[in-house]
Amino acid sequence: MKLSDAQVRQFHEEGWLFLPETFTPEEIAVLREEALGIYDQDRPEIWREKSGAPRTAFAAHLYNEAFALLGRHPRMIEPIEQLFGEQLYMHQYKINAKAAFTGDVWQWHQDYGTWLRDDGMPEPRAMNIAVFLDEVMPINGPLMLIPRSQHHGNLAAGHDLSTTSYPLWTLDDDVVTKLVEEGGIVAPTGKPGGLLMFHGNLVHGSAPNITPYPRKIVYLTLNAVSNHIRKPTRPEWIAHTDFTPITPCADDALLQYARQWKQAAE
Amino acid sequence: MKLSDAQVRQFHEEGWLFLPETFTPEEIAVLREEALGIYDQDRPEIWREKSGAPRTAFAAHLYNEAFALLGRHPRMIEPIEQLFGEQLYMHQYKINAKAAFTGDVWQWHQDYGTWLRDDGMPEPRAMNIAVFLDEVMPINGPLMLIPRSQHHGNLAAGHDLSTTSYPLWTLDDDVVTKLVEEGGIVAPTGKPGGLLMFHGNLVHGSAPNITPYPRKIVYLTLNAVSNHIRKPTRPEWIAHTDFTPITPCADDALLQYARQWKQAAE
Repeated sequence: MKLSDAQVRQFHEEGWLFLPETFTPEEIAVLREEALGIYDQDRPEIWREKSGAPRTAFAAHLYNEAFALLGRHPRMIEPIEQLFGEQLYMHQYKINAKAAFTGDVWQWHQDYGTWLRDDGMPEPRAMNIAVFLDEVMPINGPLMLIPRSQHHGNLAAGHDLSTTSYPLWTLDDDVVTKLVEEGGIVAPTGKPGGLLMFHGNLVHGSAPNITPYPRKIVYLTLNAVSNHIRKPTRPEWIAHTDFTPITPCADDALLQYARQWKQAAE
Repeated sequence: MKLSDAQVRQFHEEGWLFLPETFTPEEIAVLREEALGIYDQDRPEIWREKSGAPRTAFAAHLYNEAFALLGRHPRMIEPIEQLFGEQLYMHQYKINAKAAFTGDVWQWHQDYGTWLRDDGMPEPRAMNIAVFLDEVMPINGPLMLIPRSQHHGNLAAGHDLSTTSYPLWTLDDDVVTKLVEEGGIVAPTGKPGGLLMFHGNLVHGSAPNITPYPRKIVYLTLNAVSNHIRKPTRPEWIAHTDFTPITPCADDALLQYARQWKQAAE
């Protein structure tokens, strides 16, 4: 899969790109079911909201075959190799739940702020990717992005350790206000299988989900191999230190897995 | 202003009706400015979020001329008299801030639950009205309604005294899930000046607002005079006991006030 010149330009100017229905309903069904099984497990990689509902599951590509296939899927790897002009490795892999009724806020932040401060990543040459496992609607806490905010580079941030269960370098209201005056806010929505990618310095956040509609996404970070992290301070399953370039799987590998999985379940 | 047969039918079936741009930009501008002045005051009618930001200001029609005119405006009074077939009085009058960045959740609830339990209102023959003072967008915490949920009558509810600064009789997640399976969720959005009305038993809520866009609405309750409350337990400025029927003002009264106000300000 190759991005068009217009798509490449949009990414560089606006800082984000949305590819609707990149994965098929069959491929997504297995991931969604497997995610529920993962959330039921009791392991350190699974973090919960203050309510006890799952918030995020780290590193599922290392202990689940379906998520492993997604993590090296060519429909995701190839466009990002195209944008960065080199091979990639997996820096972080999360399944974010944004559970029905209880999914809590992710405050406004840049991800590169964390990668720089906590992991020693030299440059913002890592890509954030969200793969929609449920339908993302305006009302169930979609990711909100501030277009063009990546051009401001790494902004001053404070370390929020109290608002949610996830520590985050968050931006002040006046900074966010100024960025929104310039770029507005977009909240890409769509069916399961959509793929949203955005720049490591793009400011984003998401509101709580008070609806009965869960909004699970796979939220992962692919880093250019030459940009591998230099000073890891977080556990290996949060910020990986295996910098081996990813070899994409076959385009139908996840589909084949889904069909076998379905047969086995029947 | 008279509702069409189709609008009357929609209200009775779906439980809500949205009349976009019912008030003009000139009329809304004065209300929006006056609201900011009201929030700056230190008086018991003004309740704040846990953050200190304004959450709601009660009874502004009793101490502010512009909001007094809105409270007896024929574009609001006449359609509701048409639906109820009798005259109205003001049961409650709030300016809800849903402030930028800090506006907190209103959990899923029915308003009649409170009017029944706390005020002794005989029947759900009071109308909820939201007049938009700011643009209401999908991303700044719009009111979310569950269409047709009013047909279930008064549902069992628990008294939530801790989630926000406002005590509320809220519904359980499994009840909300079932209602949403039947009716879905709508979140009417639009420019300042829009008027949304909905049944006292219609289940509704709104998510926090984490954007820089404030979402102020005037949120008021007009009760059929014969349905006046019987056992008030809340302060007079929360649940009024003046049951005098409202005499509508002239259709241009708020506009004339706005023009004088603007002249005086220049």
